[in-house]
Amino acid sequence: MVKGSTAVSAVRKDAEKVFITIYDYDAATLEEHEVQVTEECFRFKDNDRITWINVDGINRNIVNKIGTYYGIHPLLMEDIASMNQRPKMDEVEGILYCLLNMLYFNPKEGAVEYEQISIVLGKDTVITFQEDASRDVFDPIREKLRMANSRLRQRGADYLCYSMLDIIVDNYFIVMEKLGERIELLEEEVIRCSDKLTLAKITHLRKELIVLKRNLVPVRDLIGSIMRSENELLEEGTLKYFKDVHDHIIQAHDLSENYRDVMVSMQDLYINNVNLRMNEVMKVMAIVTCLLAPATVIGGIFGMNFDVIPTLHNQWGFYSAVAAMLVIPVIMLIMFKKRGWF
Amino acid sequence: MVKGSTAVSAVRKDAEKVFITIYDYDAATLEEHEVQVTEECFRFKDNDRITWINVDGINRNIVNKIGTYYGIHPLLMEDIASMNQRPKMDEVEGILYCLLNMLYFNPKEGAVEYEQISIVLGKDTVITFQEDASRDVFDPIREKLRMANSRLRQRGADYLCYSMLDIIVDNYFIVMEKLGERIELLEEEVIRCSDKLTLAKITHLRKELIVLKRNLVPVRDLIGSIMRSENELLEEGTLKYFKDVHDHIIQAHDLSENYRDVMVSMQDLYINNVNLRMNEVMKVMAIVTCLLAPATVIGGIFGMNFDVIPTLHNQWGFYSAVAAMLVIPVIMLIMFKKRGWF
Amino acid sequence: MVKGSTAVSAVRKDAEKVFITIYDYDAATLEEHEVQVTEECFRFKDNDRITWINVDGINRNIVNKIGTYYGIHPLLMEDIASMNQRPKMDEVEGILYCLLNMLYFNPKEGAVEYEQISIVLGKDTVITFQEDASRDVFDPIREKLRMANSRLRQRGADYLCYSMLDIIVDNYFIVMEKLGERIELLEEEVIRCSDKLTLAKITHLRKELIVLKRNLVPVRDLIGSIMRSENELLEEGTLKYFKDVHDHIIQAHDLSENYRDVMVSMQDLYINNVNLRMNEVMKVMAIVTCLLAPATVIGGIFGMNFDVIPTLHNQWGFYSAVAAMLVIPVIMLIMFKKRGWF
Amino acid sequence: MVKGSTAVSAVRKDAEKVFITIYDYDAATLEEHEVQVTEECFRFKDNDRITWINVDGINRNIVNKIGTYYGIHPLLMEDIASMNQRPKMDEVEGILYCLLNMLYFNPKEGAVEYEQISIVLGKDTVITFQEDASRDVFDPIREKLRMANSRLRQRGADYLCYSMLDIIVDNYFIVMEKLGERIELLEEEVIRCSDKLTLAKITHLRKELIVLKRNLVPVRDLIGSIMRSENELLEEGTLKYFKDVHDHIIQAHDLSENYRDVMVSMQDLYINNVNLRMNEVMKVMAIVTCLLAPATVIGGIFGMNFDVIPTLHNQWGFYSAVAAMLVIPVIMLIMFKKRGWF
Amino acid sequence: MVKGSTAVSAVRKDAEKVFITIYDYDAATLEEHEVQVTEECFRFKDNDRITWINVDGINRNIVNKIGTYYGIHPLLMEDIASMNQRPKMDEVEGILYCLLNMLYFNPKEGAVEYEQISIVLGKDTVITFQEDASRDVFDPIREKLRMANSRLRQRGADYLCYSMLDIIVDNYFIVMEKLGERIELLEEEVIRCSDKLTLAKITHLRKELIVLKRNLVPVRDLIGSIMRSENELLEEGTLKYFKDVHDHIIQAHDLSENYRDVMVSMQDLYINNVNLRMNEVMKVMAIVTCLLAPATVIGGIFGMNFDVIPTLHNQWGFYSAVAAMLVIPVIMLIMFKKRGWF
Ligand SMILES: [Mg+2]
Ligand SMILES: [Mg+2]
Ligand SMILES: [Mg+2]
Ligand SMILES: [Mg+2]
Ligand SMILES: [Mg+2]
Ligand SMILES: [Mg+2]
Ligand SMILES: [Mg+2]
Ligand SMILES: [Mg+2]
Ligand SMILES: [Mg+2]
Ligand SMILES: [Mg+2]
Ligand SMILES: [Mg+2]
Ligand SMILES: [Mg+2]
Ligand SMILES: [Mg+2]
Ligand SMILES: [Mg+2]
Ligand SMILES: [Mg+2]
Ligand SMILES: [Mg+2]
Ligand SMILES: [Mg+2]
Ligand SMILES: [Mg+2]
Ligand SMILES: [Mg+2]
Ligand SMILES: [Mg+2]
Ligand SMILES: [Mg+2]
Ligand SMILES: [Mg+2]
Ligand SMILES: [Mg+2]
Ligand SMILES: [Mg+2]
Ligand SMILES: [Mg+2]
Ligand SMILES: [Mg+2]
Ligand SMILES: [Mg+2]
Ligand SMILES: [Mg+2]
Ligand SMILES: [Mg+2]
Ligand SMILES: [Mg+2]
Ligand SMILES: [Mg+2]
Repeated sequence: MVKGSTAVSAVRKDAEKVFITIYDYDAATLEEHEVQVTEECFRFKDNDRITWINVDGINRNIVNKIGTYYGIHPLLMEDIASMNQRPKMDEVEGILYCLLNMLYFNPKEGAVEYEQISIVLGKDTVITFQEDASRDVFDPIREKLRMANSRLRQRGADYLCYSMLDIIVDNYFIVMEKLGERIELLEEEVIRCSDKLTLAKITHLRKELIVLKRNLVPVRDLIGSIMRSENELLEEGTLKYFKDVHDHIIQAHDLSENYRDVMVSMQDLYINNVNLRMNEVMKVMAIVTCLLAPATVIGGIFGMNFDVIPTLHNQWGFYSAVAAMLVIPVIMLIMFKKRGWF
Repeated sequence: MVKGSTAVSAVRKDAEKVFITIYDYDAATLEEHEVQVTEECFRFKDNDRITWINVDGINRNIVNKIGTYYGIHPLLMEDIASMNQRPKMDEVEGILYCLLNMLYFNPKEGAVEYEQISIVLGKDTVITFQEDASRDVFDPIREKLRMANSRLRQRGADYLCYSMLDIIVDNYFIVMEKLGERIELLEEEVIRCSDKLTLAKITHLRKELIVLKRNLVPVRDLIGSIMRSENELLEEGTLKYFKDVHDHIIQAHDLSENYRDVMVSMQDLYINNVNLRMNEVMKVMAIVTCLLAPATVIGGIFGMNFDVIPTLHNQWGFYSAVAAMLVIPVIMLIMFKKRGWF
Repeated sequence: MVKGSTAVSAVRKDAEKVFITIYDYDAATLEEHEVQVTEECFRFKDNDRITWINVDGINRNIVNKIGTYYGIHPLLMEDIASMNQRPKMDEVEGILYCLLNMLYFNPKEGAVEYEQISIVLGKDTVITFQEDASRDVFDPIREKLRMANSRLRQRGADYLCYSMLDIIVDNYFIVMEKLGERIELLEEEVIRCSDKLTLAKITHLRKELIVLKRNLVPVRDLIGSIMRSENELLEEGTLKYFKDVHDHIIQAHDLSENYRDVMVSMQDLYINNVNLRMNEVMKVMAIVTCLLAPATVIGGIFGMNFDVIPTLHNQWGFYSAVAAMLVIPVIMLIMFKKRGWF
Repeated sequence: MVKGSTAVSAVRKDAEKVFITIYDYDAATLEEHEVQVTEECFRFKDNDRITWINVDGINRNIVNKIGTYYGIHPLLMEDIASMNQRPKMDEVEGILYCLLNMLYFNPKEGAVEYEQISIVLGKDTVITFQEDASRDVFDPIREKLRMANSRLRQRGADYLCYSMLDIIVDNYFIVMEKLGERIELLEEEVIRCSDKLTLAKITHLRKELIVLKRNLVPVRDLIGSIMRSENELLEEGTLKYFKDVHDHIIQAHDLSENYRDVMVSMQDLYINNVNLRMNEVMKVMAIVTCLLAPATVIGGIFGMNFDVIPTLHNQWGFYSAVAAMLVIPVIMLIMFKKRGWF
Repeated sequence: MVKGSTAVSAVRKDAEKVFITIYDYDAATLEEHEVQVTEECFRFKDNDRITWINVDGINRNIVNKIGTYYGIHPLLMEDIASMNQRPKMDEVEGILYCLLNMLYFNPKEGAVEYEQISIVLGKDTVITFQEDASRDVFDPIREKLRMANSRLRQRGADYLCYSMLDIIVDNYFIVMEKLGERIELLEEEVIRCSDKLTLAKITHLRKELIVLKRNLVPVRDLIGSIMRSENELLEEGTLKYFKDVHDHIIQAHDLSENYRDVMVSMQDLYINNVNLRMNEVMKVMAIVTCLLAPATVIGGIFGMNFDVIPTLHNQWGFYSAVAAMLVIPVIMLIMFKKRGWF
């Protein structure tokens, strides 16, 4: 839920309130439970139906209780309780473990927010640990689980795990779509009416893209590792689905590279525009100052108090001097114009 | 048909009108059909002639109907109906699937446009799904199909598939040729008479090059994957033809890198030119202002109202003062010139 | 103990005082010794308990004595006595050898300091050679050794070696956390009130990041080499612990890349801000100078000593002239404003 | 023969006049022929001597005639007739085919020119197709062929093929030597007396280096492919000769990278020099203008027409005022100097 | 002996005077000879002692004589006589051949100089060919050869070859140490008192680093190739020594990357400092000019010759005007200060 900051976070505070929901299903039926006491979820372990245990809120006690019962290695329990982890995949003693982030776009701050999620795939079991109870991206999965004839209900726990990764990655695209819109708006702003804040906005967006990319690269590796793992928890028929997610995450990465290039050349354009405008102002100022200088000199010449100054007593003297004050700048102006100086 | 935008597009709207044309041929004869009802194209499936089904317009219903009949996996059907996909190649259950873009050059906007195409290679069958009925790059293939003695008519569906990739890649070169001409024009503009719009044009062209490169890299991988695939749909004798396309796409990529380098150094040159010209103007202004300052001072000196000012009553005083006003700048000018300041 | 300097250091001076401490343990008991004479530590070699010999201070004599007794190859003894070595792992004749740096953050100078450590893993033995007796990062290990029921006491010398690498890498994160805080502070400074020193600070922090990264990359390779080594000194069950450290070091590297990107764009922002502020000042100066020039000219016109100057004898002449001196700049100002020049 | 342009060239126009020369030799004797009718060269095919057929000028008819007779695949014939191809190596049906460019340095334009050459190695036969009859780099080979005791005469067609690649690559070094001289001259120009044209020259040289590098990278791959090919046309004893050419092309590539680095830092230096000189001029102008401003003010003060102005009637008033006009700038100058402002 | 220039050198001139020294040894005895006639060194070939033949000065005749006698392939003899070769390793017909450069630091010019050396390892024989008789880095080897109990005397020709590579690489560190000192000095200069020459110095040092790196990368590959070669000339026990040199050369490369980064950010810092100082000067000038402009205007106002100018006849008029001339700049100054403009 933290937005992209540069500091490595310290240790996680245990959540006070943890919500556990259970989806226990096979092709025929689905049971949904909200569990009050952690131990309630143990009874689903050895039935031969698929069980999804979703834990909202990270509390070391509960992680340890569930982890111990379901045979999750202590190192993995540490990872589940960690903060700001790099997305990764691990296979330890009959468990396939994925840690990654769900991304959300916060339209108010224009920021990419993330919530760490651990997906534990065991035999006929998927356990997910989320940081934040108030949101996730799994609603479409819940809906499909409730539809008896959905493919999700026909297939095993590995397919459920795939569906989760798929929907998380699909959500990356939604976040990128939002970022893309911001980039396009900013692009117009740069071309039309950029001001002091524009560079700050560009820098901000580039940072959000870094947050994004920091997620895309390791998630791509994560899914690649699953494809190569030959873990017995994964049926062969599910492999092509993971390959599909892999295609998507590669495309997302490609797009993010594209965004970065656009941002770099946008920044170039912005800086150039600022310089051009500044240059124009300075040029006009310099030209005006320069054009008025001869008039000052002429004024000075005929303001001198010499006894003998020709034309001083001539009737048209003043008019000639003023005319010179006008004509000289005009000539200069024409010369400047000819040389293309403005 | 969309031009290179930074936004990830949303979901595709199904085409209302879909055109299906069929080329059913062997070495001896060719039948061309325009099909009104999707099901009409099913009867070509199990004859032992080569069949090319070209579907213009993407409509999920029709994709599903044809896909189901020809054994295309649901994930591939999703890819066919997707938008803004990254070019890719896939082999699923007896199908070799290629998704890539045909590129066109829009001379009015100087933009690279693209149209997504899916090429489905099955046994004795090639099915192509195009987004836009109004254009494609396959006319030379249609002509060769109509020539009984062409190599295309002598060989199998894999050679037809190769011919399509070959002509698509050949078209990339045509687009690049157009971009190359624009680059050369812009290069001359930068050297001779660049103005405010020039940088915008450079930025625009760089963006078009990004669009181009985003297609070249994955298409190179796509063709490389076909070469390594050892799919039984591909006869061994066709391999060297795919290798030839591979050579071409590598060359296209090489050329695009070259273009990018040229654009970068063009932008450097442009910015340098703008600075040089600006500097020249400012320098002249500063020099003129500076040269006139002594005259102002002299005017001020002899314009003071002291009772006793030497030379004030001298007959040649005025002329001496004005002479000084002229001589001092000339001396300064000579000094400036000597130091190579202009 | 040296802070990150660019010079390759010359030869190491032998430490005058060397402290040797021994932890000899099995699951049941732990003995701690401070050894006065080097030879005292030889008697622990062939007991069947785990022995950790920690040597604080590098003295070639002592390194050679211990090395010869414990079968460390002369090349490794050279490495132990070397300075400013690149982190590396080596397997020579029944020894697994790791050389790396412990990092500390010096808050006064904002600098990353490092101390070279050699970890020699032999049969039931770990020998560590540290440069600096006054500090290391192993206190948590010492505490766990003193707890009879800790996992460290249950397992072999390879687990002790893992624990050391783990705690060293964990400490990298602590150093990075401190650097991250500095980066955030600097970021605010750049946005709010950057001055001349800011760039020096940015450059300084970038150098610290280079010191950091120079350690991360080879330590990642070091741990990767251990994982792939299949050395018989490593029990298979310890492998997943090394994999965990590997994950952490990869994450640290990732984060350091992230820091570097932030620093680069911070520097861009700083330079841009400096330019913007400078531009603003120069613009205002140029505008003021330019606005006052017409007044100077008008003053000059009516200060000329011609006999005939219209309005000179008019009662309102002076006021008109002064009015013109005010009105002209105001008109200019309005024009400048309209063109958005300030 | 075309110099390095950014446009992809269109289709090649067939040469009107084609020159075919034949060298048919073994250790004992050498026959040289100029062939008038293409078919004349067919009679050398099945004698058991080595035959080199050199075709100067690309004409599709003749390429096809020879290609068909000597069993060159149609795709290769297309490559021979192509323009602006990327250097490549191919093995098709008993033929080893190399396409690359001979480079020449045009001293007038300071440009790298290239001529595409196809080398077809068949059994006891080498056929070369050149674009331009007026020049090539093979004269040393012709001379060695005429020497009965040369190694070339003792060995097979593969050694002839090697000799060609060797001499082409040796010529790359000659071109680079010329470029290197230009770079050194330009370097001196940048340091001593760079003017407006210097950047254009730098940009020009950088483009020539791109042309060069575009040839080096694929030729390196080409020779690497030959070394790995295990083609039966290549005797094992010839392999070390190809390895030698490989070493040379790697060195050439290395050197070109070096040149590029030098060019980049030269451009940096140039831009910095231009800025420094501009800055110096502007600084002097600003200082002169600034130094004269107080004098103007003093002149203005005592030029005012107030009835009561102190010192106005004093005998030394004028001299004091002028003295102030001189002293104040001198004081300012000293202050500026002290702060190191010029 | 040549310093790092950008030009590819032409052909080597044969040395007129060549010095040949021979070290013929086993564990028991050592013979040192200075050979006058090349053929004298042939008699050491088939004794069963280790022979080191050191040839100072490259003369094709002598290279050919020795090469032919010791079975060195003509291509290798060409390499020995070549100039400015890229470091490389080759195995041809029972010979292991290394070509690399010894680096020296020329403190007068601050330049990295190099001398090409060829090391030919044959059975019980090492032949070295150096360009320059006046210097090399092998004196420590000569000393160890003279010590009967040194490891060098106990072991074979491969260990002698290792010792040479080791000492050459150790010398790279000495050169780098010198460069590092220069970098540190330059760094202080940039921070304290950089002038016009500083950038030239930075550019010079960057070029020296390029010379360095051009040697490090291929030498790393060279030693890596030896490690992987499985040549029978290398005893298995010597492998770990080559691994040690490999570690060192990797570290040297690492350090050179580090130097390069430091140089880049030093250049950034320098350019920024130059700009900052220039900006400061220009700002002060602009402010002074701007502050004096109102005084000029006021002087002009009361210098006008209107009949009716208020306060002109007032006793305090002049003082008020001068006061205004002082007060207005002070007010402006306060405003500028408040906005943080200086
Ligand atoms: Mg962990
Ligand atoms: Mg949640
Ligand atoms: Mg998806
Ligand atoms: Mg999907
Ligand atoms: Mg990252
Ligand atoms: Mg870009
Ligand atoms: Mg898909
Ligand atoms: Mg279409
Ligand atoms: Mg083609
Ligand atoms: Mg073709
Ligand atoms: Mg891309
Ligand atoms: Mg470039
Ligand atoms: Mg070592
Ligand atoms: Mg310590
Ligand atoms: Mg850890
Ligand atoms: Mg831990
Ligand atoms: Mg490093
Ligand atoms: Mg960045
Ligand atoms: Mg930068
Ligand atoms: Mg081709
Ligand atoms: Mg030719
Ligand atoms: Mg050669
Ligand atoms: Mg040669
Ligand atoms: Mg290239
Ligand atoms: Mg460089
Ligand atoms: Mg050679
Ligand atoms: Mg020497
Ligand atoms: Mg060494
Ligand atoms: Mg050593
Ligand atoms: Mg290099
Ligand atoms: Mg850096």
